[in-house]
Amino acid sequence: MPELRKDPITGRWVIIATDRGKRPSDFAKETVQIKGGFCPFCYGNEDKTPPEILCYRSDGGARNSPGWNLRVVPNKFPALGIEGNLNRQGEGLFDKMNGIGAHEVIIETPDHQATLATINEQAVEDVFWAFRDRMLDLKKDRRLRYILIFKNHGEAAGASIEHSHSQLIALPIVPKLVREEIDGSKAHFSFKERCVYCDIIRQELNAGSRVIDENQDFVIIAPYAPRFPFETWILPKTHDACFENAQKREYQNLSKILKTILLKVDRVLDYPAYNLVIHTSPITETINDFYHWHIELMPKLSKIAGFEWGTGFYINPVPPEDSAKFLREASL
Amino acid sequence: MPELRKDPITGRWVIIATDRGKRPSDFAKETVQIKGGFCPFCYGNEDKTPPEILCYRSDGGARNSPGWNLRVVPNKFPALGIEGNLNRQGEGLFDKMNGIGAHEVIIETPDHQATLATINEQAVEDVFWAFRDRMLDLKKDRRLRYILIFKNHGEAAGASIEHSHSQLIALPIVPKLVREEIDGSKAHFSFKERCVYCDIIRQELNAGSRVIDENQDFVIIAPYAPRFPFETWILPKTHDACFENAQKREYQNLSKILKTILLKVDRVLDYPAYNLVIHTSPITETINDFYHWHIELMPKLSKIAGFEWGTGFYINPVPPEDSAKFLREASL
Repeated sequence: MPELRKDPITGRWVIIATDRGKRPSDFAKETVQIKGGFCPFCYGNEDKTPPEILCYRSDGGARNSPGWNLRVVPNKFPALGIEGNLNRQGEGLFDKMNGIGAHEVIIETPDHQATLATINEQAVEDVFWAFRDRMLDLKKDRRLRYILIFKNHGEAAGASIEHSHSQLIALPIVPKLVREEIDGSKAHFSFKERCVYCDIIRQELNAGSRVIDENQDFVIIAPYAPRFPFETWILPKTHDACFENAQKREYQNLSKILKTILLKVDRVLDYPAYNLVIHTSPITETINDFYHWHIELMPKLSKIAGFEWGTGFYINPVPPEDSAKFLREASL
Repeated sequence: MPELRKDPITGRWVIIATDRGKRPSDFAKETVQIKGGFCPFCYGNEDKTPPEILCYRSDGGARNSPGWNLRVVPNKFPALGIEGNLNRQGEGLFDKMNGIGAHEVIIETPDHQATLATINEQAVEDVFWAFRDRMLDLKKDRRLRYILIFKNHGEAAGASIEHSHSQLIALPIVPKLVREEIDGSKAHFSFKERCVYCDIIRQELNAGSRVIDENQDFVIIAPYAPRFPFETWILPKTHDACFENAQKREYQNLSKILKTILLKVDRVLDYPAYNLVIHTSPITETINDFYHWHIELMPKLSKIAGFEWGTGFYINPVPPEDSAKFLREASL
């Protein structure tokens, strides 16, 4: 008998097809392969991107020249413009404003062949420091409300350039899904005086069946009501409303556990494309008791999609207890 | 300058990249081609599906034998089971129930080469009558809350069988996106004492720039804040909360206008895959003043997806004024 399960934060019901017993090999996924060829993110092509906003380098070299470890540049085809005012206005029944914001690319490594799973822990940690540095800078802009950090890995997940990179979009609004999580968390807090994510972490660590990995500061779980096969969440064990206020030790432990889960996902699912998103508090609410920042990782395992957009209704053929077991038991 | 626009029903903001000036030919879409081969939905293979629930035929032939015009059968691999009770229960913090419901397939035509765009108007109308007949029957089941009707056309849109068909999923919950539309419509009604969709129709018919087509009973628009390029909505001009209460003349006019828009979409976008969904009121709220049933049509034009799932945030490279113009001006 399939099971209907409710996400305790957003209230979304999903069908978990517990009978189907899908194995990781049952998915028609596209293995991500790095092909090479000309790349604007490689050494020597620094002039093929807009000038860098941030750069980590230890060689003392000039700006926009080879030798860097990590580089942040504006997206060459930005979805939003940084200049101008919001000019909020109505259009009869409708509401609109100018598309003000930032759209940046974090080039995570100079190595074209590397991925976030294969670069060393220090390099992964640098990626998180770069996210934080850019967030702290953009938070000063009073037109902005939210900073969205995400990674599309592989063409099937929407990546148009294969060289390992993440993206940052700073927005004058809070994205709908984050707003829903915050509203759900607020509702839970107003009823219980507890953070819903803290409650979930406590219950999951106690039950164990959906826990994939943990270290001193983080736990990785397959959520109770996942929309997608092998969806996983990385949660800080200690309550914190926003990503950018984490301790140095936490970024170190986050780097370790992220590398581990990405290597496990590559092992179990044969190098799938994936999307990774950081969910953190809006700029104006970064210290609060109800919302708990986290990372969501969604391997792109199936072509079936689109219907979900029209309905908000998801059928997941893999119970999270199964996906957690496969990932927990994967040896590296 | 890109524009941020708000959907007046759900409150979702989307970025409309007004500068990019994309043309229909700019999309890397997969043209839907019918290949043939063995098909469980063709004449003579009636025993390859579960026995029919409903059949329209004029030849007086036996059940589950060739000669039919339209056939409704249970999905061979149903996402939900029809037998049993819901057994709603908690699991600590979490909520679940048994996956009770119906999952049916509406085989729209015996012609393997035909599509919903190419079958004649009477055959399209029969598809709507079949939807209605099944809805009326399933509404008697007090365990159910919502009947979701949708169509995946083409492999890229999630269709696993190419023979033209729609699907029906009857659920013990209301899908999240429909719930959000209903809540948004209720909020508008409580403030204005008017249906938000009726307000939109009035404003759009007056403005004209996003109107694609209309007849006596229906209007097709490109919505103000579409998530996807060439997203279109088909709305009844007269307020009605649910699909199954429409007049016979309305089903006739709906068939005409649906055929027209599908032919236009094929012409302008070169036979794209698409998803089509009927949004109607939940079973227990079928007569109300605030919600307005409609059809949403989403051509699948781009592979980029996945990130949207993690964020609820959409960037649409085609302004609806442009997509409406392309579709409005397409000659058939």
